Amino acid sequence: MTLSIDLNCDLGEHYGVYELGQDADLLPLITSANIACGFHAGDPGTMRRTVKLALENGVAIGAHPGLPDLIGFGRREMAISPEEAYDLTVYQISALNGFVKSEGGVMQHVKPHGALYNMAARRAELAEAIAEAVYKVNPELILYGLSGSELIHAGKKRGLRTASEVFADRTYQQDGSLTPRSHVGALIEEPNEALKQLLQMLREGAVWSTQGVKVPLAAETICVHGDGEKALLFVKHIRELLESEGIILCAPGSNLPT
Amino acid sequence: MTLSIDLNCDLGEHYGVYELGQDADLLPLITSANIACGFHAGDPGTMRRTVKLALENGVAIGAHPGLPDLIGFGRREMAISPEEAYDLTVYQISALNGFVKSEGGVMQHVKPHGALYNMAARRAELAEAIAEAVYKVNPELILYGLSGSELIHAGKKRGLRTASEVFADRTYQQDGSLTPRSHVGALIEEPNEALKQLLQMLREGAVWSTQGVKVPLAAETICVHGDGEKALLFVKHIRELLESEGIILCAPGSNLPT
Amino acid sequence: MTLSIDLNCDLGEHYGVYELGQDADLLPLITSANIACGFHAGDPGTMRRTVKLALENGVAIGAHPGLPDLIGFGRREMAISPEEAYDLTVYQISALNGFVKSEGGVMQHVKPHGALYNMAARRAELAEAIAEAVYKVNPELILYGLSGSELIHAGKKRGLRTASEVFADRTYQQDGSLTPRSHVGALIEEPNEALKQLLQMLREGAVWSTQGVKVPLAAETICVHGDGEKALLFVKHIRELLESEGIILCAPGSNLPT
Amino acid sequence: MTLSIDLNCDLGEHYGVYELGQDADLLPLITSANIACGFHAGDPGTMRRTVKLALENGVAIGAHPGLPDLIGFGRREMAISPEEAYDLTVYQISALNGFVKSEGGVMQHVKPHGALYNMAARRAELAEAIAEAVYKVNPELILYGLSGSELIHAGKKRGLRTASEVFADRTYQQDGSLTPRSHVGALIEEPNEALKQLLQMLREGAVWSTQGVKVPLAAETICVHGDGEKALLFVKHIRELLESEGIILCAPGSNLPT
Repeated sequence: MTLSIDLNCDLGEHYGVYELGQDADLLPLITSANIACGFHAGDPGTMRRTVKLALENGVAIGAHPGLPDLIGFGRREMAISPEEAYDLTVYQISALNGFVKSEGGVMQHVKPHGALYNMAARRAELAEAIAEAVYKVNPELILYGLSGSELIHAGKKRGLRTASEVFADRTYQQDGSLTPRSHVGALIEEPNEALKQLLQMLREGAVWSTQGVKVPLAAETICVHGDGEKALLFVKHIRELLESEGIILCAPGSNLPT
Repeated sequence: MTLSIDLNCDLGEHYGVYELGQDADLLPLITSANIACGFHAGDPGTMRRTVKLALENGVAIGAHPGLPDLIGFGRREMAISPEEAYDLTVYQISALNGFVKSEGGVMQHVKPHGALYNMAARRAELAEAIAEAVYKVNPELILYGLSGSELIHAGKKRGLRTASEVFADRTYQQDGSLTPRSHVGALIEEPNEALKQLLQMLREGAVWSTQGVKVPLAAETICVHGDGEKALLFVKHIRELLESEGIILCAPGSNLPT
Repeated sequence: MTLSIDLNCDLGEHYGVYELGQDADLLPLITSANIACGFHAGDPGTMRRTVKLALENGVAIGAHPGLPDLIGFGRREMAISPEEAYDLTVYQISALNGFVKSEGGVMQHVKPHGALYNMAARRAELAEAIAEAVYKVNPELILYGLSGSELIHAGKKRGLRTASEVFADRTYQQDGSLTPRSHVGALIEEPNEALKQLLQMLREGAVWSTQGVKVPLAAETICVHGDGEKALLFVKHIRELLESEGIILCAPGSNLPT
Repeated sequence: MTLSIDLNCDLGEHYGVYELGQDADLLPLITSANIACGFHAGDPGTMRRTVKLALENGVAIGAHPGLPDLIGFGRREMAISPEEAYDLTVYQISALNGFVKSEGGVMQHVKPHGALYNMAARRAELAEAIAEAVYKVNPELILYGLSGSELIHAGKKRGLRTASEVFADRTYQQDGSLTPRSHVGALIEEPNEALKQLLQMLREGAVWSTQGVKVPLAAETICVHGDGEKALLFVKHIRELLESEGIILCAPGSNLPT
């Protein structure tokens, strides 16, 4: 049997004259793109251009809805209700979908951004509202969420296909959650260690937590970052490792020959 | 032969705690609703609720994209490029479409709002960009525009079905344009006179301009307003008149028995 | 000795075409106005007009800074840092101050709005950041906050004059906090009961908590609401009661003859 | 007699996570900074940090108010009324002033940004509204505007001190206006030619228009740009030239020993 995995990255984060990220360099390296939808980043023109670029690179497209907080880049948690989460998810993924369709593509997935992602990982009622929004817009969409999170549970419960996301360069707690960034040891600074953790997650479906306990973990998509030369290099290392191990890189929505 | 006409009105103009208009009272009186899409008015929750209300009332739904100017309610002209007009139209009609689909409906039409409507009436390159956006999102959508305007021309040229809009309570110039609101005599204050002009437009396909010249004019949809008790009453008068004259009120996208 | 008290109310909450509240009716009834500064409500034109109206009515003016969340009217808590709280407070009170000065007035106070008020009541580091912002802009400004809150403590600590706010129509917990709105019995529906509680707070400096324990409470300003005919009537009742009891209504920044 | 001139540059154009410009490199080279105020660029935190940086570098501080159009960076003309221009100018310069005061500085000037600058150059009623706003906030502020523009006229008429701005790298028309960017020959690409034009403007108070006619021109402040390595180098060349010619670089609000 052949292992396969998806490499996803946030793209399309420009806003007006403001540029962010290195989309053109990243696209040849990844298999799925999470494209910002205008609330935390991404204006309509950027959305169109990013969709076009993703299609040209054969990269699967997903909506990346965020909180309505441009100054905070969608990273500040907000006390939104499940109904508000539903509404802003329908709005944003549909807006992006317009560009995907008009450029001749098909949307593959939805991955909430930043604080919305984190809140949906912990809180069932928000997770369910987001899953419902995705389902209502298009039940074929794949819902991306933190492996083991409420969002993945909510997606499965709603009948959506899901993709459990793992991080190579973040450490995990024994309950399967990520070590918060504010904690010492949250990040794995040493690339080889990160690659080692990644390989274990893929091969064994488990990760060593900081408590020294091995935690089971579904690993269907890897979150990579593209800000800075170092990040880009790390994505290249991940690709090389996976290819050398015979693991196939492909988006979950693509049909693999078996 | 039976004459038929559409009555369209702008709806869904709330924003957060802010309320505007009398949607519930208007919906039983009109045949098509132009629903704000979040740029000049309308937040995601309002969009969902307004779509639901329109569907319950059997009123056809259209997107009402506007300029990104909430403070100005989309009424202040902005020097946007055709490309920007294209992008903000795709974005907004697609966002609304998400709610229409998720509530089980089908979008009928697109009518630009305020300054975008006025600019698209005069400037061919903006009109063509908007028509292209509508076509790309869904070629079945009907494009509403001022009768005789560049927007209607652009829509036809692109192969879209169009609906030429007329105003009962506005006077016309001999070139077929509306008398600007800043001019004396722009508005027809006397309801009976407005109704008389409306009937002439429907029956003869022409209107008397302020210059005393009769101007040919396609009349496929009537724009009505719902702000204030007086406006609501006027819509009722229009309905009564049309019904007493045997003119059928129906949305252009509906299939009339012949 | 003569008792005196301030009646404060949120004003200037229009936004563009959107209207909210009954400012003109309220101004003759209150002594201090908290004017929205553009983040959760209030556009620049509304700010100017509201400042002018307050000056004409001899009502003291305060800035009412809120979270950058127009859709949520500043009522949804956001995970902002103390530094962000400082910055948005300096920005908003200074923006309003421009209109106060240009209209020939002097700003009296600052009262945070909605979720910012609530967060500043509970969290010392946010409260201190807001107090610091107020002090840096103008150390003569009076800081309004919930009686007994972290915000009042932070203001005193920073050397600001403060005004402890009480609510006639809300019940209190034995720790001096307000019963959360989501709890049964949070609101005092019966006007006479509310007036009775108010009088006790003013005369005794104490309130009966829902736990049946009497809680000491500084009462220097009363928060009143002006949305709806009923609210307006209640403000009138408060005024009548206070006047009949010989309690003087005046803003804390005014100089009373002794 | 000694000639002196001001070098002004737009700064503080970050927005949340978005960075723009090279403020730290530019500040040692210029004498006046125009700091964005949150409408077209610049969030509250950026404003505070930029003000601090300017003060540390001994650079005079000005407000740089723009149209409420973040996506368009304030470069798209909008049909705002004079009253709206007044209000958004009071709001923005006052907001920035809060940071200037709280950091211990004094604001020197106001220069409108982008489309607001251009509209105020051509249209007297907008220019007068902006001049009035500046005067009302603080009559000591210096109003920067295009040399010969309506804005400069309006400022003088209102009794404000003004600073007439010239461009080294733009060509002029025989009516004293800038050649529009859309025209061939609008920019002077060759640095030495630009420096030559600059020197002529300073020494002779005149410039050769593209029509070959010498046009009189007040030159009190030079607009420089700081985006990109090339722009930075050009600012250095301007400084070297001016210093070698014995022209003193100083902000108009500073008191020069004579």
